[in-house]
Amino acid sequence: MSGSGNGPDDASSAPGTPPPARRRGRPARAAAEAGPGARERILAAARTEFAERGYDKTSMRRIAKAAEVDSALVHHYFGTKEQVFAAAIELTFAPALTMPDALAGGGADVGERMARFMFGIWENPVSRQPLLAIMRSALTNDTAAAVLRGLIERRMLQRVAGELDVPDPEFRAQLAASHLIGIAMLRYVIKMDPVASADTEEIIAMVAPALQRYLTQS
Amino acid sequence: MSGSGNGPDDASSAPGTPPPARRRGRPARAAAEAGPGARERILAAARTEFAERGYDKTSMRRIAKAAEVDSALVHHYFGTKEQVFAAAIELTFAPALTMPDALAGGGADVGERMARFMFGIWENPVSRQPLLAIMRSALTNDTAAAVLRGLIERRMLQRVAGELDVPDPEFRAQLAASHLIGIAMLRYVIKMDPVASADTEEIIAMVAPALQRYLTQS
Repeated sequence: MSGSGNGPDDASSAPGTPPPARRRGRPARAAAEAGPGARERILAAARTEFAERGYDKTSMRRIAKAAEVDSALVHHYFGTKEQVFAAAIELTFAPALTMPDALAGGGADVGERMARFMFGIWENPVSRQPLLAIMRSALTNDTAAAVLRGLIERRMLQRVAGELDVPDPEFRAQLAASHLIGIAMLRYVIKMDPVASADTEEIIAMVAPALQRYLTQS
Repeated sequence: MSGSGNGPDDASSAPGTPPPARRRGRPARAAAEAGPGARERILAAARTEFAERGYDKTSMRRIAKAAEVDSALVHHYFGTKEQVFAAAIELTFAPALTMPDALAGGGADVGERMARFMFGIWENPVSRQPLLAIMRSALTNDTAAAVLRGLIERRMLQRVAGELDVPDPEFRAQLAASHLIGIAMLRYVIKMDPVASADTEEIIAMVAPALQRYLTQS
């Protein structure tokens, strides 16, 4: 299911570890014409386009158009489509990347804190919609999945594991996260009752002991 | 993200409870020309097309072409695109629909049996690929999500709940299922290590107690 009409934007190196942005096109003139704040405008446009259309259907040209800049400037600042996507999801994921802080110190309620943290993000439509969009992209495009995997491994997993005093902390952190991801799928995507309409406190009460076991019991 | 070029195929009534197939077009002549086994050919073609392209990009015309029949015959046998999809995923989901049998009688190892049942389906590429395709469709298209939800509610959830002797059996069955769905996402879609490359027995040993708690402890 690769996108159509993206041409060279799809050219990419090994996913997950983006190389430095390529410099090409007419960057100097384009940057001058685009005025101040162009980079931020491009990033905001990329975030919106990827969220609304998914990875496959978003092209560099479309991002440039939405940001009202020359396509060359998108390449200048971000490199490939894969790299723009990486920058966009890093922005979208910023709230989720603070998860390790929520788990710091462990304790008898760390499972509950993890569940509460997840609902704090997912129950707010403003943070939920772009996260759903990322999940959609990752599920339908291998490059998008690799970028997401790289971001989570680099920015979240090691830190979470560092907070846990158990054997195989990364494995356990992933099992706990998988449970919350699955609940998000049932509740917000497939919208299946009773999980879809249950009070979050009911879900937290049931799920917290399962998370607690992963995060603290060896 | 609605598909393009599907035209009237997208017209649908309330999802989840398909009305009887519409009769239109030139069914009698088309059926005669298509020869015996046409219905099965259409269903097999629909399953393949939906699996390879997802719900959005699959059209009735394309299914008809793949099955080498007239489009009118697809409408004759199945009605709308939504109804063909429902029939196709019911076929794909047939192995998963036997889940309640795996849980029958409960017992101290029912959590482990549930996890084992899931891996029995997901570890086999032949059954995994079409399931991933359904998840992709459900995640990217609301109609596909509604059809999947209807199938699971009608054919699986009530029976699973009937096997459990706990309060809120459907809620608990869904929480257990959500965990397994999340593991499938991490392992087979995002392919994140260590969960992606862990031995299934390692995962089962960790996850079974969490499932057991949902399925048996009140």
